[in-house]
Amino acid sequence: MDFLAQLQRAERKNQSMLCVGLDPEPTKFPGTMRGEPARIFDFCARIVDATKDLVIAFKPQIAYFAAHRAEDQLELLMAHIRRVAPEVPVILDAKRGDIGSTAEQYAREAFERYQADAVTVSPFMGFDSIEPYLRYPGKGVIVLCRTSNPGGSDWQFQRLADVDGQPRLFEHLARLAQTDWNRNGQLGLVVGATFPAEIERVRQLAPTLPLLIPGVGAQGGDAVATVKAGWRPDAPIVVNSSRAVLYASAGDDFATAARRVAMETRDLLNSARSTV
Amino acid sequence: MDFLAQLQRAERKNQSMLCVGLDPEPTKFPGTMRGEPARIFDFCARIVDATKDLVIAFKPQIAYFAAHRAEDQLELLMAHIRRVAPEVPVILDAKRGDIGSTAEQYAREAFERYQADAVTVSPFMGFDSIEPYLRYPGKGVIVLCRTSNPGGSDWQFQRLADVDGQPRLFEHLARLAQTDWNRNGQLGLVVGATFPAEIERVRQLAPTLPLLIPGVGAQGGDAVATVKAGWRPDAPIVVNSSRAVLYASAGDDFATAARRVAMETRDLLNSARSTV
Repeated sequence: MDFLAQLQRAERKNQSMLCVGLDPEPTKFPGTMRGEPARIFDFCARIVDATKDLVIAFKPQIAYFAAHRAEDQLELLMAHIRRVAPEVPVILDAKRGDIGSTAEQYAREAFERYQADAVTVSPFMGFDSIEPYLRYPGKGVIVLCRTSNPGGSDWQFQRLADVDGQPRLFEHLARLAQTDWNRNGQLGLVVGATFPAEIERVRQLAPTLPLLIPGVGAQGGDAVATVKAGWRPDAPIVVNSSRAVLYASAGDDFATAARRVAMETRDLLNSARSTV
Repeated sequence: MDFLAQLQRAERKNQSMLCVGLDPEPTKFPGTMRGEPARIFDFCARIVDATKDLVIAFKPQIAYFAAHRAEDQLELLMAHIRRVAPEVPVILDAKRGDIGSTAEQYAREAFERYQADAVTVSPFMGFDSIEPYLRYPGKGVIVLCRTSNPGGSDWQFQRLADVDGQPRLFEHLARLAQTDWNRNGQLGLVVGATFPAEIERVRQLAPTLPLLIPGVGAQGGDAVATVKAGWRPDAPIVVNSSRAVLYASAGDDFATAARRVAMETRDLLNSARSTV
């Protein structure tokens, strides 16, 4: 089953557009786990167990593992998710961006070593930096398109002088991703939640691609506006929340608290669907 | 000692602009090492030992380690270089590109875990994706600017409609890196060797930044034109060659062959200096 079909199945089964981002920071862990990198797997597994029936996907961010020499715990976590939630796809958030044999190594890392269902990539080096991932049939490749941090405008928001209609870079990218690059239906796009009008614009240019939308929750995007702008019955959105769920409580009830916040966010997103 | 001073010291001591890229591919290893990911450290250490007096820097590419679960071997390799060649700076080629606390984790991975002297980063998410690395005083941060793969033109070569003079993206980036972003003298730029005129353009816009120039050797850039375009007495260039050195021989003489190719490349680059 390919990544898009996996997303659609999880969306239906869990009635959810919510993705829980697994960005483990030991300094924020509860109780006796606090400050213990050796507990990264335990902490994340508890979050997975508490939210697995509420999500469309999980998204571990590899930097948080790499900084703590915890690649082995990431492998365990991927296997754990596969075991307890076989119908929930896993997006490895790595934003890799390289070409040729180096990109092949990164694809191997994501899809063979970690058995991810999809990976995030950065398009700065152009289509050659995307193509090696597309050689893994059925795997998802989610390309950075428009990010909502201040520096997101340094390049992504620039209008391109020599392209017809002088689109902004992110607009041109969304169009290319939909029309030229998406050879086997594997692509998706990352679009920040802070600017719903831009999600709407990306959806216009890329009507069938799944959109990964970070920035709801701790980063403050408006959930309802996000769904309205991006969700379509045949084109899922994957709305990520990390810190707001992971660190909902600093006490021993952290898993229960995470479940409560995940459920609230899921329901809020679902309620917005009726407005589309 | 900061990264730029380290480069200048190694350039002088080893009379070299050559960087040996450590991109270990077990399928290309010689003799009994062939196909053995467990020999990644051994292979790379032999290359380091054979070339350490000929280089301005070493550049391990992290993907080649990550694909084989060999982060521990990368740690050993970094320590080995530090021990046998304490005056040769090490650039971790990772092309990371993320923001906020995620970028902080990547910086921690590069500078604390691996003790790299510099790291390559991708600027797609803008200055916020560079800034967290600059908080490590003295460490080098080498930003992708203009790459010579075909897709390098997808965005980097686009002219920006709303910036004065409608510069190409890579030109605007080079200027910003020199003037606005380089707060503590930590920045460098990656510029491909295939287009010497573009190296010259970047050098014009960023007169004092070190340039990391991949693409000489197996990728076929012209060494002499590269030096002429980029090298200045007070602004080093770091000309990378990986495969041409690493896989100079598939036999037991691989280290001797690597040394010979490294020496030839170094000498060729040096001979071009007199033309500047």
